[in-house]
Amino acid sequence: MCRVPGPTLADIARAAEVSTATVSHALNGTGRIGDATRRRVRETATRLGYGTPGPPRSRTLGIAVTTFPTAWNYAEIAYFSRALTAATSAAHARGYALTTLPADRAADDSWHSLAVDGMLIMDSPRGDPMVHALRARGIPLVFDGIPGDPRPGDHWVDNDHEATTHEVLDHLAASGARRIALQSGNGDEHYARAVTAAYERWCAERGAPALIVPFDVADDQGHGFDELLRGGQDRADAVYAAYDPGGRQLLAAAARLGLRVPGDLRVVCASEDPGYAATDPPVSTVTLDPERTARAAVGLLADLVEGATERTAGPVVVPAALLVRASSLARPAEG
Amino acid sequence: MCRVPGPTLADIARAAEVSTATVSHALNGTGRIGDATRRRVRETATRLGYGTPGPPRSRTLGIAVTTFPTAWNYAEIAYFSRALTAATSAAHARGYALTTLPADRAADDSWHSLAVDGMLIMDSPRGDPMVHALRARGIPLVFDGIPGDPRPGDHWVDNDHEATTHEVLDHLAASGARRIALQSGNGDEHYARAVTAAYERWCAERGAPALIVPFDVADDQGHGFDELLRGGQDRADAVYAAYDPGGRQLLAAAARLGLRVPGDLRVVCASEDPGYAATDPPVSTVTLDPERTARAAVGLLADLVEGATERTAGPVVVPAALLVRASSLARPAEG
Repeated sequence: MCRVPGPTLADIARAAEVSTATVSHALNGTGRIGDATRRRVRETATRLGYGTPGPPRSRTLGIAVTTFPTAWNYAEIAYFSRALTAATSAAHARGYALTTLPADRAADDSWHSLAVDGMLIMDSPRGDPMVHALRARGIPLVFDGIPGDPRPGDHWVDNDHEATTHEVLDHLAASGARRIALQSGNGDEHYARAVTAAYERWCAERGAPALIVPFDVADDQGHGFDELLRGGQDRADAVYAAYDPGGRQLLAAAARLGLRVPGDLRVVCASEDPGYAATDPPVSTVTLDPERTARAAVGLLADLVEGATERTAGPVVVPAALLVRASSLARPAEG
Repeated sequence: MCRVPGPTLADIARAAEVSTATVSHALNGTGRIGDATRRRVRETATRLGYGTPGPPRSRTLGIAVTTFPTAWNYAEIAYFSRALTAATSAAHARGYALTTLPADRAADDSWHSLAVDGMLIMDSPRGDPMVHALRARGIPLVFDGIPGDPRPGDHWVDNDHEATTHEVLDHLAASGARRIALQSGNGDEHYARAVTAAYERWCAERGAPALIVPFDVADDQGHGFDELLRGGQDRADAVYAAYDPGGRQLLAAAARLGLRVPGDLRVVCASEDPGYAATDPPVSTVTLDPERTARAAVGLLADLVEGATERTAGPVVVPAALLVRASSLARPAEG
């Protein structure tokens, strides 16, 4: 974890009446020392404000989504709203207030003075100025999604996007798809890069063409798919949409182009929106389990803030799950 | 709204090159002045930090639930989690970060230094120390639920709990209930007092006995209802549970006591939990529309922080709705 301003090991050693080596062992969970001693050292360290930006502690954790530092409202997207709900409950259960920043706050410099003891940063891209500033301030960080600029000792929680992407593609192939396209992000966060790389690797291993459509959140009617879905033999017969609205965009495009789902076009969408169980047809979804991810990340962050570093053996990999619905079932037997 | 430290009307008048009377009209939405002037005065006032705790603005709104300043986790209750999700989205849409405080934070004095431009306080009881401290600091406040210590000019968003309670009781009476009990809170927030008073008034007008069972969040099995639901003629044949878990507590109690729902016992619960549509039997619920309430409250608060007081004609009354399910239908015809 990041080292931060505050008392030194020697300060804690004096106050707890032990050696600095014992303090180091107690705080890092190493060595062979008694529980009572470890506890006393921990309590002393916490009392002295060790591992925090220095008293007065704000007893506040922060959350930011830094991929797109614009005015988009991530709280209206199911993955994030569900993650925020779980994170709030987890933070309060540990006695912390939780501050969520609007997406465009990542574009100004207000986080230079943000009063938080620790920060959970979601989908951090490469060259993330907020991460740079918070690291410089020594604010403990936990990432949801491997950070674009990882450092040794970073703590993050993520899914195994390569395994999940391959599971989806194998499922679509098993259901009869021959030309499987990917709708992926144009962002620089790990998720977009990992899903795209896994897709390209999967296609290369099978000599299949890589058909990638950029995600456009504003394209309600899925016009971005028109070229991909037209043109007889060469059109895609399946799409994995890696972002939440993609499934609805695909249903709209298929309806406009007269394609049956799943008969002519199989659809899988990464989404936490239960509404996909009620679309026509219901859309197969990949859930990344944002509640479990957020709880794990907040727990990690609170441990870091409290200097309980032996409990923070990251990274944490949260299982994702493919929920198969009608939109990606095998084409009905013909003839 | 509360007056706060910062520039005076005269300061704004000088900077905007208008009279102090014009400033007052522009900020309060009174008088007959042109839109351009009103806008210029507003912008000047905002630029000077008028109506805020003074620069630097934190561009952060806070939320606290102050009824029970203990370690209960309100974020795990459907009403609050849904309100928080909507409040986060509304705050971010206005460019504000949102800080939610754990329930027990209302018991310490950290809010004396809490870095917020405005605060949304939910279920504020009488003698609320947080409200007292924030009023003293001149922090703009909006209440979800009429505050226990209201002041002229307070801004709040609430439902009409008397009308809703009477609607529920009339529905239960129409479905054949003769001895209708209320499970209500022992808190001092307006909601508990308003629902209880409305129930007692309704009973008094009909010469019906007032049967009130205190809510106990820990009573999963509804043992608190045993006395009420035993004893032949005198037992209650319907209960309105004014708190979320009450419906499940009642189903557990009825099963233990061998009572059929709704045949022997009609149940209505105030809850935002969609899970009540899937219980056996499905439970009739009252929804208070926490999303609409939270959006309205955050909008009011942002207007107050920005000095746009002509938009803040409170109070706002949000309609509640009774959703009738099997648990409160008329007893099947007998004989």
